[in-house]
Amino acid sequence: MYNGLTVESDKLKEECGVFGVYGKEGDGLARTTYYGLYALQHRGQESAGIAVARDGKIMHHKQMGLVSEVFDDVLLEELEGSIACGHVRYSTVGDSHVINAQPLVVKYRNGSLALAHNGNLVNAVHLRGQLEQEGVIFQTSVDSEVIANLVARKDKGDILEAVKETMNCIRGAYALIIMTSARLIGVRDPNGIRPLSLGIKDGRYMLSSESCAFDTVGAKLIRDIEPGEMVVIDGDGLQSFYSDGPRANRLCVFEFIYFGRPDSVMGGKNIYMSRRRAGANLFKEHPADADIVISVPDSGTAAAIGYSEASGIPFVEGLVKNRYVGRTFIQPKQRQREIGVALKLNVLEDMVKGKRVVMVDDSIIRGTTSRNLVRMLKNAGAVEVHFRVSSPPVQHPCYFGIDTPDRENLVGANFTVEEIRDKIEADSLGYLSLEGLIEAVGDCREYCHACFSGNYPI
Amino acid sequence: MYNGLTVESDKLKEECGVFGVYGKEGDGLARTTYYGLYALQHRGQESAGIAVARDGKIMHHKQMGLVSEVFDDVLLEELEGSIACGHVRYSTVGDSHVINAQPLVVKYRNGSLALAHNGNLVNAVHLRGQLEQEGVIFQTSVDSEVIANLVARKDKGDILEAVKETMNCIRGAYALIIMTSARLIGVRDPNGIRPLSLGIKDGRYMLSSESCAFDTVGAKLIRDIEPGEMVVIDGDGLQSFYSDGPRANRLCVFEFIYFGRPDSVMGGKNIYMSRRRAGANLFKEHPADADIVISVPDSGTAAAIGYSEASGIPFVEGLVKNRYVGRTFIQPKQRQREIGVALKLNVLEDMVKGKRVVMVDDSIIRGTTSRNLVRMLKNAGAVEVHFRVSSPPVQHPCYFGIDTPDRENLVGANFTVEEIRDKIEADSLGYLSLEGLIEAVGDCREYCHACFSGNYPI
Amino acid sequence: MYNGLTVESDKLKEECGVFGVYGKEGDGLARTTYYGLYALQHRGQESAGIAVARDGKIMHHKQMGLVSEVFDDVLLEELEGSIACGHVRYSTVGDSHVINAQPLVVKYRNGSLALAHNGNLVNAVHLRGQLEQEGVIFQTSVDSEVIANLVARKDKGDILEAVKETMNCIRGAYALIIMTSARLIGVRDPNGIRPLSLGIKDGRYMLSSESCAFDTVGAKLIRDIEPGEMVVIDGDGLQSFYSDGPRANRLCVFEFIYFGRPDSVMGGKNIYMSRRRAGANLFKEHPADADIVISVPDSGTAAAIGYSEASGIPFVEGLVKNRYVGRTFIQPKQRQREIGVALKLNVLEDMVKGKRVVMVDDSIIRGTTSRNLVRMLKNAGAVEVHFRVSSPPVQHPCYFGIDTPDRENLVGANFTVEEIRDKIEADSLGYLSLEGLIEAVGDCREYCHACFSGNYPI
Amino acid sequence: MYNGLTVESDKLKEECGVFGVYGKEGDGLARTTYYGLYALQHRGQESAGIAVARDGKIMHHKQMGLVSEVFDDVLLEELEGSIACGHVRYSTVGDSHVINAQPLVVKYRNGSLALAHNGNLVNAVHLRGQLEQEGVIFQTSVDSEVIANLVARKDKGDILEAVKETMNCIRGAYALIIMTSARLIGVRDPNGIRPLSLGIKDGRYMLSSESCAFDTVGAKLIRDIEPGEMVVIDGDGLQSFYSDGPRANRLCVFEFIYFGRPDSVMGGKNIYMSRRRAGANLFKEHPADADIVISVPDSGTAAAIGYSEASGIPFVEGLVKNRYVGRTFIQPKQRQREIGVALKLNVLEDMVKGKRVVMVDDSIIRGTTSRNLVRMLKNAGAVEVHFRVSSPPVQHPCYFGIDTPDRENLVGANFTVEEIRDKIEADSLGYLSLEGLIEAVGDCREYCHACFSGNYPI
Repeated sequence: MYNGLTVESDKLKEECGVFGVYGKEGDGLARTTYYGLYALQHRGQESAGIAVARDGKIMHHKQMGLVSEVFDDVLLEELEGSIACGHVRYSTVGDSHVINAQPLVVKYRNGSLALAHNGNLVNAVHLRGQLEQEGVIFQTSVDSEVIANLVARKDKGDILEAVKETMNCIRGAYALIIMTSARLIGVRDPNGIRPLSLGIKDGRYMLSSESCAFDTVGAKLIRDIEPGEMVVIDGDGLQSFYSDGPRANRLCVFEFIYFGRPDSVMGGKNIYMSRRRAGANLFKEHPADADIVISVPDSGTAAAIGYSEASGIPFVEGLVKNRYVGRTFIQPKQRQREIGVALKLNVLEDMVKGKRVVMVDDSIIRGTTSRNLVRMLKNAGAVEVHFRVSSPPVQHPCYFGIDTPDRENLVGANFTVEEIRDKIEADSLGYLSLEGLIEAVGDCREYCHACFSGNYPI
Repeated sequence: MYNGLTVESDKLKEECGVFGVYGKEGDGLARTTYYGLYALQHRGQESAGIAVARDGKIMHHKQMGLVSEVFDDVLLEELEGSIACGHVRYSTVGDSHVINAQPLVVKYRNGSLALAHNGNLVNAVHLRGQLEQEGVIFQTSVDSEVIANLVARKDKGDILEAVKETMNCIRGAYALIIMTSARLIGVRDPNGIRPLSLGIKDGRYMLSSESCAFDTVGAKLIRDIEPGEMVVIDGDGLQSFYSDGPRANRLCVFEFIYFGRPDSVMGGKNIYMSRRRAGANLFKEHPADADIVISVPDSGTAAAIGYSEASGIPFVEGLVKNRYVGRTFIQPKQRQREIGVALKLNVLEDMVKGKRVVMVDDSIIRGTTSRNLVRMLKNAGAVEVHFRVSSPPVQHPCYFGIDTPDRENLVGANFTVEEIRDKIEADSLGYLSLEGLIEAVGDCREYCHACFSGNYPI
Repeated sequence: MYNGLTVESDKLKEECGVFGVYGKEGDGLARTTYYGLYALQHRGQESAGIAVARDGKIMHHKQMGLVSEVFDDVLLEELEGSIACGHVRYSTVGDSHVINAQPLVVKYRNGSLALAHNGNLVNAVHLRGQLEQEGVIFQTSVDSEVIANLVARKDKGDILEAVKETMNCIRGAYALIIMTSARLIGVRDPNGIRPLSLGIKDGRYMLSSESCAFDTVGAKLIRDIEPGEMVVIDGDGLQSFYSDGPRANRLCVFEFIYFGRPDSVMGGKNIYMSRRRAGANLFKEHPADADIVISVPDSGTAAAIGYSEASGIPFVEGLVKNRYVGRTFIQPKQRQREIGVALKLNVLEDMVKGKRVVMVDDSIIRGTTSRNLVRMLKNAGAVEVHFRVSSPPVQHPCYFGIDTPDRENLVGANFTVEEIRDKIEADSLGYLSLEGLIEAVGDCREYCHACFSGNYPI
Repeated sequence: MYNGLTVESDKLKEECGVFGVYGKEGDGLARTTYYGLYALQHRGQESAGIAVARDGKIMHHKQMGLVSEVFDDVLLEELEGSIACGHVRYSTVGDSHVINAQPLVVKYRNGSLALAHNGNLVNAVHLRGQLEQEGVIFQTSVDSEVIANLVARKDKGDILEAVKETMNCIRGAYALIIMTSARLIGVRDPNGIRPLSLGIKDGRYMLSSESCAFDTVGAKLIRDIEPGEMVVIDGDGLQSFYSDGPRANRLCVFEFIYFGRPDSVMGGKNIYMSRRRAGANLFKEHPADADIVISVPDSGTAAAIGYSEASGIPFVEGLVKNRYVGRTFIQPKQRQREIGVALKLNVLEDMVKGKRVVMVDDSIIRGTTSRNLVRMLKNAGAVEVHFRVSSPPVQHPCYFGIDTPDRENLVGANFTVEEIRDKIEADSLGYLSLEGLIEAVGDCREYCHACFSGNYPI
């Protein structure tokens, strides 16, 4: 139904954010979940949903739209309960139906379940096929429905056992919140590809894709759920279980580059600090003889500041962002096509005129926005534009929950760095190396960096 | 979310209407279905949906609201296909979620299915339980989901066999349209409780709950689908199959009394004519010494005219209906409570003043509206009000798809005729006998009249 | 913005309904006005508005849509006041903006005014021109704005004097409610072309276009406001004033034929009774040798019953109306054009097959619906169709607030009765004469019947 | 109707933005205006409107909501014309009705006018009273209606003369766009309090509150409209006229501090650069012994960078903004009150822990947000927080179009700097002096700085 185009179209898209909290009735848990999802809104702007457990039943509301559009005061009052979980979703247009909004709420032999999932199963098609062979019907196109079917079939009275068995079946990336009428369960895949963390406020445990949601609701981050871990929160407190088989630490490195909110902490590392270090490393690898460092706001700013600090070249703001740019606007006619970027960003001419400019962005996907920005700078009088990217070229599709464009549209997969430099009309172009990136993000962890390296954890 | 009350609150509620058509792409089948549902709107005003099959896939749109609110031109254009089916639904508030809107569209091992169901399974809870025991999850509270699961599990490659086997499992009332990517299937339960008829226009077969939808789209009624019959419409034309076991003709007699549109034909009988005959029989059983016959519009008019013809007492219009009364309006405050009926109906004082009035209604459920109408007539100067009802007292709940109020609110279940007369403040009260009703509706058929007799077909 | 067509497109359109009530805060006057407008909804379905006076201020809410769509409980609570007035409006598409919705609320030197107007000034263009010459600006295209300007300019401290002087300036048809912070004023033009009546409930005076609104809110009709009368309702009760110059009784006769609700009383005459008498006169003037009399529901029914009574030919229902037909629906594609009428009306074949049918309608405007109905009857097996119209041919445009089509689309203005009969494919056609109509409506009053006679009162 | 609170509640509110363009039909001028308003959205988020002149007529559409919500493709297509103007509006809740949305479109003796106004007349009440004495009615509460009345009354055939005479009557702040069917007129008050600038693209002249809108649509800034200047754009090109009497250059200095977009140029000065210089001056006046400089994003960032450059203390990002914070969200319950700021901003703990922090904001209005931010920093481990404000204390209300809170809520009007420091719990607090601010903004111009100095230009 949208007749507009998104202004963020030259970035990779995260697919979901999840949040859950265990407490007691009267705690306003739906409201807490609302604020938690509000803080996770950057992980999905297409639909939002909240489910609550009360008196052995699960009630929910979900709809297309931003968290602030989907819920109002009356709805949150009605969603009073003793456990709550929620979900924000981004999806490709094809599946953009309310039927696919989450949490998915189902009834089965042992009661009701709500599921909220971030990630992507690589064997979903296979599992669907298997289930279908056994007569299962599917009403949605989301993996949650596959997982719900598996849990339901494996649950012979012990939901925890059923979830553990399900973890043995499903392969891929998943950060999963499962709510029964009595328990809040958090699960992370054995490679820990998608993030999930544990927080606490006034003795109430919470789960969230990112710790920034804990800060927003006044809770404290305890720790990340570990790869292959299942935490079970109920009246007895918190219990922890682990999946069979090998477990590794392959958190998606793009969470550090672009997806995660800079104020979140993942794997013990603050995202903002990682980005700043990436900027510093970027300078070491690709120095530039320039007068100023600017960023493509907002995602490139931390790295630009890091680059500036390492290089001693002053960081200045060279591009201004229209802070009212929404998800959609009316598409310019053909001859106004250039308005697309101009609606979002404008040059501060006085800052760049006559200057040799280093412009730092976090990534280049299609390259069209990059070229428009270089042109805008040159038109404003920049004498040189040295484009620096705080991550390696994206060359491979993601199978773990990130919406990567078709290979033909992935500029890094089709052209050399020099060719890309030429296409975006920059005077020089430098990408941070994978090593430089890993070093910036830190420590001995293995990350999933398949989109750069093609080295898939699964 | 509604803050109003419905003005039809003193009538039984039908639960659904279904429509389907087989043709080819470019025929505008979604549009035909839209008009068909428009004609069936009286069978359900809560939600509406249309599904179409195109190129092996099934697409659909469904939403809360009237047919004219749910669809617009753009949606109908997008729903181009070679087969289409649709559904209108009424439900109690508790289940009034879009998740329960129909058609239900599912994927399973042999492709996709859309199901549109009118009726109620009496063994749905049992079947759900059985399926749940086998690990099935349920996302809705509608019987269609039970049926879809059964069909999917029984379909080993022959959908027709699967539907037949399903008919052997499910018990209760069902008029069912099942659409695959290649076929349109119509099914009616072995007792034929809910109606379903077959029509044709320009060689295209259609299915509809009522024949009035055929008239609206310019098609011709061929015949009713028979009790226990499954018709299969595809590129080879129409085939017919029958359920195993006994079949009977127990069409819900309330379709003739209130639910069906007067211009529909069911069981070969025109509904309007039946109502008129019921009015004539009502006079024979309960004559009245009166000056005029009036009806409670619109549902009592045909019987009132029949009463008038049989009695020779002139039929006049004594009550005027506000034709803009919608589904909801703002609830009057306590001291304005009487406005409820007045918003809908007003007396023509000049017609009733000084008169002895026979007022004919099709049924009395709670009795509150009846009492208000008697009062209105008396206030307008009617000297006597003889209430006549063209059906017997409703004394038993319906288990086959009609929403009957709790027994305590069913005036006919709790009071004698004389007590009801007293409550509604009429000078006399007469209900048509079951025999008189059956005679009016016609021929040797057995109907389901369990709401009057307690004699349930199943 | 509407993408549909109205199903009532072959009827003349009333342009407005007004309602007002004087009481005290806490009486729920906005709510009373809401129900009053609900009862007047047939007079205008495009926009609705309510204004209330409280503490010397006037607040209001108005919007496009039906009364039940424009207001909700919260709005009515906020519109608490000691005087209230409201308006429902129909208009041609061109002026269908919320800016033209009424009541019009303005501030001027002596306070605030709300105006609700039904009718049309014939010298509005002239008065606008004059006012513009004096420097007045206009923000709307409604006559109310002209009237408000005149009242404001003439009000030197005595609003009543100002209204009286305004009545001396404006010419045409007007039933007007003016509300100040302290008074409710009702005004009717000296020819009394548009209706306005006075009612009372629990000592509170009310004004309404039609008495049916009084019945709905439990009030009693006192009398019509007289032609040229201004009634002033305030803390001192009710005062009455009269315009200078001649006054006549030229109530629009079409109120009796089609616009007015049958349960309303105008000029002391019940509308339904007038229609019935018109039907009887129609038989006297145009008898028919036929088996049954049917009506085009709902507007032709009273006359059809009158025709039946006078002729002894039994009245039966031959056409069934879809009671869910709304204001708009999706337009059929070219080859489905015939669906237009079929969506609204269907034939009861059993009633008309083999019969010689008299079909009675209240008027013929364009003739297209009439022809479709005759065809539907013939297709259903009627052997003869004798069309009878309970009013004369509409041959002249209305300048007093009724939306008549262009002369070229007015079938009565362009063809003889025989030609029209031929166009609509009826076996015979008879229109009621003007004399017969006047006799039916009653007494010695002069009506405005310019649309039939060309004899304009002004 | 909003049930949320705005997250920007601790900032002053601009009241409007205006845009206009002269061209020819087919140029897509409504679309250009749409993009222009999109760029001016920060000046008003309550309502938006566009009017176009075509064939001697003026058409318009306006509604409550953001530009992207008010318009869609269909509307912009319908608003094709040869001249266009538009408006975005912020207002206090009391007047937040669509009736007050602009442009105001009126008809008067010499045709039609559309007016879009930014500013506030100080003699509006007086002028209204005068006009009312002459019989004028008012339908809105906006000054545009006063201006439209004056222009209409003074226009004896020469609209330019009428506008000039109007300028002699009205006193206060106004940047005004007036569109007739043939001309686009831009007017700025003789003190030049509110900004208005002239741009050009492909020979088409444009008017805009800020030059950033020119950049967005690909146009070039020519110059500011001068104080007291009226520019008239029509088929003959551009003509310029000046008001009688003294003219001064008293542009609102708050445009440089907060209202204006950083990429706009006003009075020949880039706003971003001014803010940076203000930050540098702020250091000179209020140095701090600290480890890092952070800003309150986004409005404090430019000054923070200036402070950093001048001081040599490194600028880092210490606060992260949730970029999905919308205009409204559901209000936290009492005990969650602290969530308000946390929803919008979060601390980067790693950046501030153990640090002595200089936090720079552009202004302090109520002080509540400031205190919450200081607390957040301290909780995150900042050892000292030195609050610096890049403008003087706001001590006086604005009468020229800015919504200042009541004096009792204006922290700068009621407390000394030391008291404020204590209230916001900062270790030190320094406001930029008026001299320092003026020096930063630049040159010999006189600004309006009445909110700081009480020295009103009028």
